[in-house]
Amino acid sequence: MAKAKRAALVRQEPGVLLHRISQLVTMSGEPGARRGREMCHIGLIEDAAVLIRDGKVAAVGKTAEVLRSPWVKEHRAEVIELDCRGKIVLPGFVDSHTHPVFVAPRLIDFEKRVAGASYEEIAAAGGGIRSSIEGVRKSSEGKLADHVFSALRQAQSQGTTTIEAKSGYGLDAASEIKSLKAIRRAAREWQGTVVATFLGAHVPPPEFKQEPDKYVEVVCTEILPEVAKQKLAHFVDVFCERGAFSLEQTERILREADRHGLGTRVHVGQLTNTPLATILAHHPLSVDHLDCLEKADVAALVAGETVATLLPGANYFLATKKYPPARKLIDAGVPVALATDYNPGTSPTISMPLVLSLACTQMRMRVEEALTAATINGAAALELSDRKGSVEVGKDADLAFFELDDYRELPYWFGGNHCAAVMTSGRFADLF
Amino acid sequence: MAKAKRAALVRQEPGVLLHRISQLVTMSGEPGARRGREMCHIGLIEDAAVLIRDGKVAAVGKTAEVLRSPWVKEHRAEVIELDCRGKIVLPGFVDSHTHPVFVAPRLIDFEKRVAGASYEEIAAAGGGIRSSIEGVRKSSEGKLADHVFSALRQAQSQGTTTIEAKSGYGLDAASEIKSLKAIRRAAREWQGTVVATFLGAHVPPPEFKQEPDKYVEVVCTEILPEVAKQKLAHFVDVFCERGAFSLEQTERILREADRHGLGTRVHVGQLTNTPLATILAHHPLSVDHLDCLEKADVAALVAGETVATLLPGANYFLATKKYPPARKLIDAGVPVALATDYNPGTSPTISMPLVLSLACTQMRMRVEEALTAATINGAAALELSDRKGSVEVGKDADLAFFELDDYRELPYWFGGNHCAAVMTSGRFADLF
Repeated sequence: MAKAKRAALVRQEPGVLLHRISQLVTMSGEPGARRGREMCHIGLIEDAAVLIRDGKVAAVGKTAEVLRSPWVKEHRAEVIELDCRGKIVLPGFVDSHTHPVFVAPRLIDFEKRVAGASYEEIAAAGGGIRSSIEGVRKSSEGKLADHVFSALRQAQSQGTTTIEAKSGYGLDAASEIKSLKAIRRAAREWQGTVVATFLGAHVPPPEFKQEPDKYVEVVCTEILPEVAKQKLAHFVDVFCERGAFSLEQTERILREADRHGLGTRVHVGQLTNTPLATILAHHPLSVDHLDCLEKADVAALVAGETVATLLPGANYFLATKKYPPARKLIDAGVPVALATDYNPGTSPTISMPLVLSLACTQMRMRVEEALTAATINGAAALELSDRKGSVEVGKDADLAFFELDDYRELPYWFGGNHCAAVMTSGRFADLF
Repeated sequence: MAKAKRAALVRQEPGVLLHRISQLVTMSGEPGARRGREMCHIGLIEDAAVLIRDGKVAAVGKTAEVLRSPWVKEHRAEVIELDCRGKIVLPGFVDSHTHPVFVAPRLIDFEKRVAGASYEEIAAAGGGIRSSIEGVRKSSEGKLADHVFSALRQAQSQGTTTIEAKSGYGLDAASEIKSLKAIRRAAREWQGTVVATFLGAHVPPPEFKQEPDKYVEVVCTEILPEVAKQKLAHFVDVFCERGAFSLEQTERILREADRHGLGTRVHVGQLTNTPLATILAHHPLSVDHLDCLEKADVAALVAGETVATLLPGANYFLATKKYPPARKLIDAGVPVALATDYNPGTSPTISMPLVLSLACTQMRMRVEEALTAATINGAAALELSDRKGSVEVGKDADLAFFELDDYRELPYWFGGNHCAAVMTSGRFADLF
C-alpha cells in the first residue's frame, strides 16, 4: 500500500530541479574515505544545479549545463524547480558517532567539572557513565525512543541527514536490547538514515565492577548473539580504555562481532595510549577519539583502511589542554572523520557545524578537510559511501541548505544555526 | 498619535500573567553590578509567575503567591495568561560588547589563522580590522543598517534583549557618523534596546598609520564633538593596545569624552598588559578583554566600580592558550560581565548561550556566575541596571524563554539553540 502510494507520487513529480545554488559542495570524485591531501578537493561548483529523480541525484553541474541536458529540456514543464540563490548546498552531514539513548543531562557532573574535577574523579565519585545507566534501565522503550527522536530532530535542524546511534547506557541484556529497539523505533519516525551500534562494552556495569571479565562473557555469549539474531545493530563498538575494557577484552568482543557478521568500531586513545596495530588487525570500520597517539599508531593507520574519527566536542567540553592530532593524521595520509560524540557526560552537543568550528579553530583543519571529514569520510566510517556523503549521480539526494554565501562561513560563524533546510532522498524535512 | 494607540492597547490588555514557569531566574536583590561571591545568588524561583503591566514587571513570585495577590484576583478575567510549564525564563541577555557595523565576513583572515598565522601577523599582512574598513567606507548607511539589523535579529533569536553596538570600522568622520546612524536606524526597527558606542579609536586608519597622534587629534576635535552634538552614541570606547592606541592617547580621548558628557569604556589587556589603575582613574563603565592582568590591576578593579567585561569568544576563535582570568577576578570580588564581542575578525558569534558555555567550560565560571555576568552585570556595564538585567518589580519586562527544565542546561548543551521566545517590554518578539 505504501509502495503504491509512493509510485503514484513519483509519477506526479518526475523530478526536482535545484538551480542557481550559490555554492554547491559535491565532495565528488573519490569513492570511500578521502586520504590526507585528497581531503582538500571538495568538488565546489558555483551557480550550480542538482536534478533529483526518484530520491536520487540524477544530474549535477553548472546551472546552464544541467538546463541544457536532454532530459531536463524534455521534462522541464513537469519538474519542480527551486531557485537556490543566496544558499550554499552540501551533502547532509554524516554524524558517525553519537550516544543518544539517555534520559537526563548530567548537570551535577557538569558542576563538578566546572569546579575542577577530572573525568575520572567524577566517575570515581559515582558520576560519569554509570549515572546514566539507572535512568535507561528504569525507562520504557517508548520513553527512550522519544529522547532519541528529539536528538535526531535537533541533529537534522543543523544539517545532519545520516547519524550513527549507539546503545551503551543499559549494560544488561534487557536494557541494551531495549536501547537498540528505541533507536530503531525513533529511526522509523525520523526522515533520515540511522545506523545502530551495539555498545554493550561501554563500561563494566556496577554489578560486574569487580569482575569485568564476567561481563565481557555476558556481552559475548548472551547480549551480542541476541542483538545479531534480532538484527538490531549494524556495528559493535567497544570502549578500550583504562577503567573500561582492556585490549584483550576488546579483542575478544571484536572477534565475537566478526563471527556474527557485524562490523566493528572502537573507542580508543581518549585518556591513555593503546597500541593501535593490534586493534587495526581486526579491521574495524573506524577507531574513535585518538587523543593519545604514538608514531607507530599513525603508521598503522596509514597502512590500513580504517577511518580515524575525531571527536573534538569532548575535548571542548572537558577543556582538555590538547585536541586530537588532526594535522598529524591528515598530513600522514590517514582518512579522518569528524563526529559530535553527542552524549550527556562529555559532549552534550549534536551540532555538526560547531564540530566544524572546533576542527578549524582548535585543530587547524582546513575548512575543506573539515567538510570532507563531516560528510564523505563519515559515510565511509559507516560503510555507506556508496549512497551517502557526496552529491553524485546515483547517490541518495541527502542535502543540507545553509543561508550563507560561501562554504567557508559554515565553520566561521560559530554558535548560530544557518541551516535553512534539509532534504533526504529528495524530500524536504520539516525542521520546526 | 502613536501614544494614543498605545494607551488604547493597554486598556484592552491590562496585563500578561506568565505562570507555572518551571524555573525563573530573577537575578533580584542586588542593584547594579554583582561583586565576587554575590554573583552566585541568582534568585531562582521554581513554579514561578510574573505579572506584567504596561511593559513592566508588576509582580514576581511563586505561581500560588502571585495568583493570590489582590490585583490578580480582581483582574484575572481580563489578564492574558500563559502557561510556561517546561520552560525556564531568564532576564533577556545583555550583550554589552559588539561590533556589528561591517559588511563581510573575513574569510581569508580565517583561512590564514587556521593555517597558523597570528592575529598580529594577519594585521601586518593587510588583513585584520583594516580589511573591514574599506567595506564600511564604501557602503551606504542603509546597507550597513541592514547588516546591523540582521545581527540584532540573530542575537534576539538566542535570547538577547539588550545589546551594545560599536562603530569602529569607518575611522573617518563621515564613515563613523554613517556607522552610528546605521546603528540608530537598525535599532529603530528592532524590538529590543540598543546602546550605541563611538569607537573611532579602534585602530589608526591607513592614512594616519605613520601619524597616529594626528588621528587622535581628528577623533578628539572633529568626530567626537560631532557624535556628541548629534547624540549618536551613549559611550566612547578606545582600543588601548600595541598596534592600536597608547595609554596617553587613550587618556586624551577619555578626557574628551568626559568633557562632552559621554560615558566611557576601554578595550585593554587583550594582547599585552597596560596598567589598569591609570585607566580606572577615568571611571570607565567597563574595561573589556583583560587577558593580560597583573596583580595590581586586579586590586585596582576591586577598589573601583568599573565592570570587568570578559570576551571568551575571541579566545576561542583565536585559539589562545589562555582565557581571561575569570576565577581570579570573581574570587577577588570584581564584578564580571560576559559579552560576545561579535565582530568579523576575532569573534564571529552573536550567541550569548555559547559565551555561557565558554565561560563555564573554559574559564571555570559557575553557571550562576556566568548567568549573572550575562544579565545584571552586562546591564551595569551599560548603566542600565535600573531597568534591565533582572526580573524585578518596576523593571522592563525583557525576558528570554528556553525549552529547558533546568537553568544549568543553558551552558551545558552547546552549539544548539533552545531559545523558544523573547519578550521586550512585555511584548513577544517574532523570532523567525
